[in-house]
Amino acid sequence: MKTRAAVAWAANQPLTIETVDLEGPKAGEVLVEVMATGICHTDAYTLSGLDSEGLFPAILGHEGAGIVREVGAGVTSVKPGDHVIPLYTPECRQCKTCLSQRSNLCTSIRGTQGKGVMPDGTSRFSCEPVGGSQPLFHYMGCSTFSNFTVLPEIALAKVREDAPFDKICYIGCGVTTGIGAVIFTAKVRPGSTVAVFGLGGIGLNVIQGARMVGADRIIGVDINPARQEIARKFGMTHFVNPTEIGSDKVVQAVQDLTGGGADYSFDCTGNVTVMRQALESCHRGWGESIIIGVAPAGAEISTRPFQLVTGRVWKGSAFGGARGRTDVPRIVDWYMEGKINIDDLITHTMPLEDINKGFELMHAGESIRSVVVY
Amino acid sequence: MKTRAAVAWAANQPLTIETVDLEGPKAGEVLVEVMATGICHTDAYTLSGLDSEGLFPAILGHEGAGIVREVGAGVTSVKPGDHVIPLYTPECRQCKTCLSQRSNLCTSIRGTQGKGVMPDGTSRFSCEPVGGSQPLFHYMGCSTFSNFTVLPEIALAKVREDAPFDKICYIGCGVTTGIGAVIFTAKVRPGSTVAVFGLGGIGLNVIQGARMVGADRIIGVDINPARQEIARKFGMTHFVNPTEIGSDKVVQAVQDLTGGGADYSFDCTGNVTVMRQALESCHRGWGESIIIGVAPAGAEISTRPFQLVTGRVWKGSAFGGARGRTDVPRIVDWYMEGKINIDDLITHTMPLEDINKGFELMHAGESIRSVVVY
Repeated sequence: MKTRAAVAWAANQPLTIETVDLEGPKAGEVLVEVMATGICHTDAYTLSGLDSEGLFPAILGHEGAGIVREVGAGVTSVKPGDHVIPLYTPECRQCKTCLSQRSNLCTSIRGTQGKGVMPDGTSRFSCEPVGGSQPLFHYMGCSTFSNFTVLPEIALAKVREDAPFDKICYIGCGVTTGIGAVIFTAKVRPGSTVAVFGLGGIGLNVIQGARMVGADRIIGVDINPARQEIARKFGMTHFVNPTEIGSDKVVQAVQDLTGGGADYSFDCTGNVTVMRQALESCHRGWGESIIIGVAPAGAEISTRPFQLVTGRVWKGSAFGGARGRTDVPRIVDWYMEGKINIDDLITHTMPLEDINKGFELMHAGESIRSVVVY
Repeated sequence: MKTRAAVAWAANQPLTIETVDLEGPKAGEVLVEVMATGICHTDAYTLSGLDSEGLFPAILGHEGAGIVREVGAGVTSVKPGDHVIPLYTPECRQCKTCLSQRSNLCTSIRGTQGKGVMPDGTSRFSCEPVGGSQPLFHYMGCSTFSNFTVLPEIALAKVREDAPFDKICYIGCGVTTGIGAVIFTAKVRPGSTVAVFGLGGIGLNVIQGARMVGADRIIGVDINPARQEIARKFGMTHFVNPTEIGSDKVVQAVQDLTGGGADYSFDCTGNVTVMRQALESCHRGWGESIIIGVAPAGAEISTRPFQLVTGRVWKGSAFGGARGRTDVPRIVDWYMEGKINIDDLITHTMPLEDINKGFELMHAGESIRSVVVY
C-alpha cells in the first residue's frame, strides 16, 4: 500500500513529506494507522547525526497512537479496530529480561530494531524518490512519522477506545518516561522529598508523577525561569535557578530545602555535570538518584565513591521502567481519570506537512510538546 | 586508671606501647576491657598519614571484643560482665537516620567521633611520655589498641558469652563489612550470580556471605593467584586473574561466566578503575554493584551513564549496612552455629607488644587478618 510519511533522507536535513510504499504485516506483525504522533528530543537527536546508531534514510517518530488495521498470521493480542500505542521498548513476556521480572528492557527484538529493520531482518518501507525503489529504515521499531506503519505484535499496547489519540500519543514516550521513573524505577514513597533537574517535558512528568504518589516537597531545578509557572502547576513546590545562585551552589540549595538532601532526585537534562549534582543532592544514607536524560556520545558521569559508600544510590531509567503492554494502558487510564495532566503539556499541534516546524519549536524552547495529527 | 595501649604518636611511625591514663566512664559511657582486637587496613590507612581526617597522637584500633567493667550514669543496655563488640558505627535508634529504617549510618555522635573525642567533646585518654599530661585522641570511637577503653553505650553490641574474643573481634569490622554488604546492602537472592573483586579479608567475607544466602555462581577476581585456594574454600566457584587475561578483558570474562553479567558485584579493592569494572560486569537490566573498598583521597569513579540507564545500579556499603547493636549479635550467632567461617581468616595472633609486626604482615600480603590478644 501507499502511505504518507515524513522521511529523513540524511542527517541534519529537514524531513520531506513523501508517498512511500508499505508492505503489509507478516507473521506476528500488525499494520497500524497512526492517528497522532509526538515529536521528541530523541527524534531530533537522531536527525542531528550525533546519534552514532542513527541510520538514514529512515522514517523517524516513536511516540504515537493509532488504530490496528490489519494483523499478520498468528497475531492474537490485538485485532483490527483496536486502539494501540506503539512501543519502542516491547514486552515479549518470554525473554530472559521479561521473565526476570526485574527490568522492562525486553531483549527479544533488540538486535533487529537497532538495525532499523523488522525482526525478520527486512524493512516494510520503501520509496522511489528518483526512480528505483529504495528501502527506508524503521526507527526505534515504530516509525510513527508515517501515517501507516507496521510493528511487531509485542510492540503494541492495547488501550481504551475513548482516549484521544492527540493526547495519549505522548504516553508512548515522554509521559511514561517521566511518570514511570518515579513510580516504577524509583518507587517514590508518599511523604518523600524529590528534586527534579531539568523542567522540560520529562521533568514536568516526573513532577506530576511525584505529586501523584504523594511526595511532600518537589524541588525543580532549571536555568530557564519561564519554566517555573508551569512546573508549579504540575506540582513543583520549590524552584532553584542555577543561573541565579551559581551552579556550584545547587547541591547545597537542594539540601537546604530538603533537610539534608532529597530522598530521590532525577536528572532530566542529559548533562553529565547535572547528573553528578543530582546524585550529590540526595540524602546521605538512602537518597537515590535516577538518570533519565540521554548524555552525548562518549560523555561520562563521575563522583567520589564516598558518595555511594555513605548510602546514596545511582540508577537509571529507560521508558520509565514501564513494561509497555502491561503499564501503558494503566497510564492511559490515569489520564482519562484525571490523575495526570497531559493537555497542558501539548503546547502545539500541526499537520504532517508542518512537522519541521515542530522541530524548530523544540529547538527554540518554545514548545513543551508538539503533536502531529494525521 | 592506668592501661596498656599502643600509641600512634605521628603518621608513618611505628606504634609504641605505653602505659596511659584512662578516665572512667561518664554519663552514657561504658568502660570495656578489650580482650582481643584485629588489625585492619583502615588502621594502616590512618597511620600512613593519607587519611586527611587522621588525628595524632591517637590510640588506633576499631575491631575489638571485650567485657564491660564499669558503666556510667544512665547506662541501661549493658552491665559489668557483659561481653561486647565495640561499634565504630553506633546505633542510637533515635536519630533521623536510625528512625528512617533505611540506613545504618547513625549520625548521633558522628561529629565528635570524627574529631577523636567522646560525645562531650573531651578525650578519656592521656599520657605523660616526656612529662606533662597530654590528651590522646580516640579513634573511630573505639581505640581497641588499648587494653581498656571507654565507649558510648550506643556504640556497644552485646553478644553471647560463649563466643571466643579472639575470633569474634573480627566481626567488629571485616566480617560484618563483607557479609553485611551481601545480606543487608545488596540483599543477594538465592540462585544469584555474584562477582567479587579483590579477595582480601573483605572479599572472602563477601564470598562466604554469598554462599550463605545461596548464590549459584560466585566469581572471584584477584591479581594474586595465591588467593584462589582459600577463596574456593569460602565458596568461590570461578576465578578470574586480571594479570593472566589482561585487565581490559575482566568485564567480558565475568559476563561470559554469568550468562551476560553478574546479578551482583562487589568492589573490595578501593581501586576506582576496578570499581568501574565491577559495575560494568553486572547484568543489563538489573545488575547491582556495591562499592565496599575505600578509595584514595580525591579519587573518582566514572562510567558512561548508559550503564545505569540500561538498568545497572551503583551502590556503596559501609559496615555492611549492618545496624551494629541489632545485627552484630546475630552475626556472632552465625559464627557460633557454624554458618560462617572466621577461624581460617585469622592467620596470625600476637601480643600487644608485637602489634607492629601485624601491620608488617598486612603490608606484605602475608596475613588475611592478624589479631592482638591482650
